[in-house]
Amino acid sequence: VIKETLEDLHIGDIAEIVEYVSKEDRVAIFSVLDVDEASEVFEKVNEATRNTLFEELDEHIIVDIIRELPADDAVDVLSELPKEKARQYIRKLIRIEPALTAKIRYLMRYEEDTAGGIMDPVFVAVKADATILEAIEEIRSQEIDEDFFAVYVVDNDGKYLGDVRIRKLFTAPPQTKIKDLIEEDRIYVTVTDDQEHVSNTFSRYDLITVPVVDQENRLVGRITADIILEVAKEEADEDIYAMAGTDPDELENTSVFNAARIRMTWLAPCLLGTAVTATVIFAFKDKLFVGNFSYVFGIAMAFVPMIAAISGNAGLQTSAIIVCGLASGHIAAERLKQVFLREFRIALLVALACGIIGGIICWGLPRIVTFDNAEQAVEISALDIRVTLAFSVAMFSAIIVSTTLGLLLPFSFRKIGIDPAISSGPLVTTANDSISVAIYLSLTLLLVSL
Amino acid sequence: VIKETLEDLHIGDIAEIVEYVSKEDRVAIFSVLDVDEASEVFEKVNEATRNTLFEELDEHIIVDIIRELPADDAVDVLSELPKEKARQYIRKLIRIEPALTAKIRYLMRYEEDTAGGIMDPVFVAVKADATILEAIEEIRSQEIDEDFFAVYVVDNDGKYLGDVRIRKLFTAPPQTKIKDLIEEDRIYVTVTDDQEHVSNTFSRYDLITVPVVDQENRLVGRITADIILEVAKEEADEDIYAMAGTDPDELENTSVFNAARIRMTWLAPCLLGTAVTATVIFAFKDKLFVGNFSYVFGIAMAFVPMIAAISGNAGLQTSAIIVCGLASGHIAAERLKQVFLREFRIALLVALACGIIGGIICWGLPRIVTFDNAEQAVEISALDIRVTLAFSVAMFSAIIVSTTLGLLLPFSFRKIGIDPAISSGPLVTTANDSISVAIYLSLTLLLVSL
Ligand SMILES: [Mg+2]
Ligand SMILES: [Mg+2]
Ligand SMILES: [Mg+2]
Ligand SMILES: [Mg+2]
Ligand SMILES: [Mg+2]
Ligand SMILES: [Mg+2]
Ligand SMILES: [Mg+2]
Ligand SMILES: [Mg+2]
Ligand SMILES: [Mg+2]
Ligand SMILES: [Mg+2]
Ligand SMILES: [Mg+2]
Ligand SMILES: [Mg+2]
Ligand SMILES: [Mg+2]
Repeated sequence: VIKETLEDLHIGDIAEIVEYVSKEDRVAIFSVLDVDEASEVFEKVNEATRNTLFEELDEHIIVDIIRELPADDAVDVLSELPKEKARQYIRKLIRIEPALTAKIRYLMRYEEDTAGGIMDPVFVAVKADATILEAIEEIRSQEIDEDFFAVYVVDNDGKYLGDVRIRKLFTAPPQTKIKDLIEEDRIYVTVTDDQEHVSNTFSRYDLITVPVVDQENRLVGRITADIILEVAKEEADEDIYAMAGTDPDELENTSVFNAARIRMTWLAPCLLGTAVTATVIFAFKDKLFVGNFSYVFGIAMAFVPMIAAISGNAGLQTSAIIVCGLASGHIAAERLKQVFLREFRIALLVALACGIIGGIICWGLPRIVTFDNAEQAVEISALDIRVTLAFSVAMFSAIIVSTTLGLLLPFSFRKIGIDPAISSGPLVTTANDSISVAIYLSLTLLLVSL
Repeated sequence: VIKETLEDLHIGDIAEIVEYVSKEDRVAIFSVLDVDEASEVFEKVNEATRNTLFEELDEHIIVDIIRELPADDAVDVLSELPKEKARQYIRKLIRIEPALTAKIRYLMRYEEDTAGGIMDPVFVAVKADATILEAIEEIRSQEIDEDFFAVYVVDNDGKYLGDVRIRKLFTAPPQTKIKDLIEEDRIYVTVTDDQEHVSNTFSRYDLITVPVVDQENRLVGRITADIILEVAKEEADEDIYAMAGTDPDELENTSVFNAARIRMTWLAPCLLGTAVTATVIFAFKDKLFVGNFSYVFGIAMAFVPMIAAISGNAGLQTSAIIVCGLASGHIAAERLKQVFLREFRIALLVALACGIIGGIICWGLPRIVTFDNAEQAVEISALDIRVTLAFSVAMFSAIIVSTTLGLLLPFSFRKIGIDPAISSGPLVTTANDSISVAIYLSLTLLLVSL
């Protein structure tokens, strides 16, 4: 019954089913699939599911699945395993599939997130001096099992010369030389290019496929848009997870403990950061919690969450713009000054608006809501214009500081090799809490002590 | 000189230059470009730049540019204009390009972010009973100026039957009937499908191109992966901006005032939200700010930023996972229970860990940092175990509440038509500030009053 149901389904649909059924059903599904379908499904499911499959399926079934995979997919799958485990599989493969194993070893030297790591080493290439007819004969004889969307042209040393659109093969006279059909704009990427760069190249030139060349300009593979769509979604998820203070790693594994551990590694520094904020408050409490100033302390405390949240968020707005701009390559060196000027002007306007609105709330709210002790209200009235002023100026300053951080941190992080998206994450927001509270309470103490 | 420099450049590169040069240089570049290049660049630049170009270029130049655009791109460009302005251009076009205008009007009825709105109405289609040779002749005679990556097969009524991989046209014998080459898995989308659904269809089936059919199953267009990459990046940016409390709209327009206005529409509700938090604090201050309890108030206040930040972030971690899962279509109805159970378990572990660590900090920190008044330290010692307990339990409860919100809000928002990503934004975090502070101070008041 399972077999009949699965037969009508596309690999993508079977993969999705495998991702959410129970262990028993997963194993049952793999037992009825042909080995070529099994290998496609195995490659298509998400990493967490593949991790469980590695444990649930018999080792000889996994070896059969890997044998069936194209070399590049085999590399992707093996590189998710612990090194020792991957070596074990390769030792097994080398005896039964020496040719495939050689290809796997060759591809393994490319980093996972570079053009070499995401490319498909199988492509359609023809010689420049062939005619269309000869080229079509050549393509037919290569018996390539993958779709192709452009024909790449190489010289006798395998160096990349350019591509010919498939449409031209149909529409030009059959005796036309290939070299007369080559497109002028030769867009290609190099094996060592970062996948983010490759993805931006696709966007900039509206590509469907791009050739990959090695350091000597020899054609070694191609990357198709479906892979880039995967890469773009992966990079986008990475950024969103960084902003939320967690990690896509938590999805590689189904364990709840592991996920909680990953989240705690992000929350622990936040706990420390907010402990610093608490220390700042204690320091000021020791100074303010005397006589009349106690009331000042009480009012000031009520507005701590406001200044922390608003300045943190204003910084976040700026850094999110920068992080997106950096990721898409839209903030290039040439525009840096332009971007900075624009963001700084926006920050000034926002800081001014929030400073004024915040001041009004800080002045009005205590009058509306603390009707319990009229005596206290009178007592503070002499001080409260100063408290209001301190809050208003502190709000302005804290927003300027946090937007400056939001502007500079993504660049600095990138420079020292940290993912810029982390600068839009909770660590920075928590640090900003301490800074804004310190500014606020310093200004309050200064003004009421005058 | 400009002309020579531009001649060697690809449209994508010219578009990028146009995006960051000054008004004068923009106009100069457009004055040297051929009208067909100008139209490609005009379509390729980002929306903010196109907005300024609409104002800077002469109206007859813009009309010439639109005349040169394919109908679908003309629709995209016109739909960015105010309605009245768009109608003006259409009235001008109708006189000189009646055929194009008819196509534009036809395409305009599709919503911008549906399959109909992003499709290309130009495609290569052949009849099922043709032979390969006849099909190739047919393709040649259609003289389509766009690349194609699959050949679509239709019946005599134009209904979609399936596609033939281009590779088959080269490799199968020329007399083979097209209907014998049709792929079995007919994957297609319908004009009214949301672009997010189309994007997920591409990911699920690793597509390079997909046919679009109308309600009667007639083939009306195709969507290629380059458009989907644009869509995926647009949707990802949308989510990141929502999380930061701003809007991609701010990039449609170069005005600093406009950007500040958009950011303020997000910060204003946060100001209100934090005013609620201030009110909560005032309410408890009236109750706690008497006798011994004043000291309790002082200590409690120092830990308000901690409980707000940590619980807010724990909720954010959960909601980001859900928002990403919903966007990619990975959280389907079938898995809802599984996802909820997993997230709830993780939340329990995280809440437990943070409750314990938070309690330890709340107990230890005042001992370490408030050495100023030993007298005060002694005075609170009788109460502080209660304060610590209140904080620890409040931290646990606040995290459970915020993760529950992080779990449920994305679904509820989606149901009532609000972008789920907003549930990972500052509005929800600010609301969470109030809730967590209210829980914390209630528990503190309860325990110290016992
Ligand atoms: Mg794949
Ligand atoms: Mg790879
Ligand atoms: Mg492949
Ligand atoms: Mg990966
Ligand atoms: Mg990366
Ligand atoms: Mg990134
Ligand atoms: Mg475009
Ligand atoms: Mg459109
Ligand atoms: Mg188009
Ligand atoms: Mg749009
Ligand atoms: Mg949308
Ligand atoms: Mg969305
Ligand atoms: Mg916060």
